Amino acid sequence: MSYAEHFSLKNIPYGIASTQDRPAAVATRLHDLIFFLSDLNLDSPATLNALASIDKDELVKLRRTLQTALGDEKNVSRFGIPVGEATMHLPIEVKGFTDFSCSTEHLLNAGEAVLGVRSFPPASLHLPIGYTGRSSSIVVSGTPITRPYGQYRDGEEIGFGPSRAVDYELEMGAIIGKPSTFGDRVSVNDADEHIFGVVIVNDWSARDIQGFEMQPLGPMNGKSFGTSISPWVVTLEALEPFATEPPAKKTPVKAYLQDNKIKSSYSITLNAEVLSEGSATEVCKAQLQWMYWTFRSLVAQQTINGCNVNTGDILGTGTVSGVGDDEHGCLLEMTKGGKVEWELSTGKKRRYLEDGDGVRLTAYAGDGVGFGECTGVISAAKPF
Amino acid sequence: MSYAEHFSLKNIPYGIASTQDRPAAVATRLHDLIFFLSDLNLDSPATLNALASIDKDELVKLRRTLQTALGDEKNVSRFGIPVGEATMHLPIEVKGFTDFSCSTEHLLNAGEAVLGVRSFPPASLHLPIGYTGRSSSIVVSGTPITRPYGQYRDGEEIGFGPSRAVDYELEMGAIIGKPSTFGDRVSVNDADEHIFGVVIVNDWSARDIQGFEMQPLGPMNGKSFGTSISPWVVTLEALEPFATEPPAKKTPVKAYLQDNKIKSSYSITLNAEVLSEGSATEVCKAQLQWMYWTFRSLVAQQTINGCNVNTGDILGTGTVSGVGDDEHGCLLEMTKGGKVEWELSTGKKRRYLEDGDGVRLTAYAGDGVGFGECTGVISAAKPF
Repeated sequence: MSYAEHFSLKNIPYGIASTQDRPAAVATRLHDLIFFLSDLNLDSPATLNALASIDKDELVKLRRTLQTALGDEKNVSRFGIPVGEATMHLPIEVKGFTDFSCSTEHLLNAGEAVLGVRSFPPASLHLPIGYTGRSSSIVVSGTPITRPYGQYRDGEEIGFGPSRAVDYELEMGAIIGKPSTFGDRVSVNDADEHIFGVVIVNDWSARDIQGFEMQPLGPMNGKSFGTSISPWVVTLEALEPFATEPPAKKTPVKAYLQDNKIKSSYSITLNAEVLSEGSATEVCKAQLQWMYWTFRSLVAQQTINGCNVNTGDILGTGTVSGVGDDEHGCLLEMTKGGKVEWELSTGKKRRYLEDGDGVRLTAYAGDGVGFGECTGVISAAKPF
Repeated sequence: MSYAEHFSLKNIPYGIASTQDRPAAVATRLHDLIFFLSDLNLDSPATLNALASIDKDELVKLRRTLQTALGDEKNVSRFGIPVGEATMHLPIEVKGFTDFSCSTEHLLNAGEAVLGVRSFPPASLHLPIGYTGRSSSIVVSGTPITRPYGQYRDGEEIGFGPSRAVDYELEMGAIIGKPSTFGDRVSVNDADEHIFGVVIVNDWSARDIQGFEMQPLGPMNGKSFGTSISPWVVTLEALEPFATEPPAKKTPVKAYLQDNKIKSSYSITLNAEVLSEGSATEVCKAQLQWMYWTFRSLVAQQTINGCNVNTGDILGTGTVSGVGDDEHGCLLEMTKGGKVEWELSTGKKRRYLEDGDGVRLTAYAGDGVGFGECTGVISAAKPF
């Protein structure tokens, strides 16, 4: 898929690209062409981390400059490189990764699947609950994900071997631009100053390993074998036309989570497909707007205790799910904890992902502004 | 305290030091003097991360070279800088931080304090359970720790404000030297190849914030407001004379956690004191050797699912506790969840830490090999 329509002049995302002749450097994309910023005579930092950390005013100027430059057909024809000739790299060096759990539907569905109880975790309506994720194993879209080994419950026994319950999680993540200082808080109302942009996130999960390990310290090995992100960071400025209201709060929240911006969320349509034997099966349609907690509130929650955020940090939404049966953002929910089979377009049955299965996540805000895709294929566990 | 006896020629730790005239650079310490490696005519990398990532053979050679150089009184008198004239910095850039829970006594004591039940979490005897910690807020010993704001249970209500239950945790952490590759596993028997050295860790905790947030995703804001580490990294080579057997396993463990090295743990005496009004009160004496899981097993557990470790990662033991009443490695245990008061040497009463209270952790292996101290003082919460 080309996703040319995701990358209009209204988008101007940032990524790290290389070609056969050119080393990895900061690039942007217009329709089916990529452009190295250095070609456009722009004084571009060598990494996206350096670019993301500059002041918002400067970033807004850079965006306008790029829009002007790429509005000129001469530049497009002179400097454009077909996306097929470019290799995309991890867009940012990820310093810290927090995965929150922003979807009330996911909380209810996952609780029901695992514990048989459809109720909210104690803190989850009072604050965005989350866990610190592993940064080292965050990879760019397209990187194969190896089925992890681990320990899990196997009837009355403790089993050990390749996970039997590899899942995807459809998420988005805010990427921190301007860092905050150790000991300081960032107000929910100032949070946008610290958010550079947004990517698609697939927080691959091994449900059996996760289920065994997570009492009481939370998920670790069931998650840390790999997390994929999309190669293009779409800036908050490009997303602003799609700003929209989040759901009303079910219970009053503390002042530090009360946002003066009414349209503090974004309308972004998300889609998940499982790819098998050359055929795609849609497994989820969802909307970022359904999230109970906004990116802005995640920045406030991360820093309320004085924890500092760094350029390149990712604050993830957690699984994006809705109320419908076709709106489950992971297979744990769709299969009710691995109990219910579903059918691929090939007619074959699945619960969790098998070796060779791929997952494609896409996200589109509208009017020429989208994220392209975030993909990954599960490869067989490495034998001992 | 000078800790001169911790830093004999048998130690040769590494840290990052600066003086009024000299920028921060890799240094070592002998008794009460520090030495910049560059002064000793050694081709030293600019950062400890770079140094830590070189092959073990080279590190062993460097250690011998330094022992020879500092065995020469001429070098000592020519290049030694009194520790009082040096400022110590965070020794490594910490890429990833995992805090495990290696003490069976801590698991039982903490469970009893929080849940009233003295039993092991389901996975904890089968594998070292842990959570991914926050790297951004890891600071060097001596850095003040600001009392964090957060939400907590307050009777039937949800409270918000400065934590009322700030605690320390007496821990040690292994620092990764040689990285592993995404998708690969590191065998418990090869783990030492990837461990550069060990530091003291204080995993400051806000028990009220942690208690409210951690169901089901584990601790986050209750921990991420600050973690202190000691400035000197003591290498595995210096610790080898203190290698010793860990406790016998209470239940058989899977092959990947079975260690061929008999003496796979270390005998290191740990001590925690609370400092108040110029007076120190010992609150814990403990032994690293009591830990059910070794540093080697933590490397195996971290990577069993293909998660890669990077140079500068810290794998922490979690709270080091013993069976005795004077062997509780945190106040949660000592106060049975904040219910029991204890007395400072000044005669004043405490449950958790008050503003101005300091904590000093020390660690000593023996025979001139120690870690010095890891300190921090709780400063008042920043008003809104």
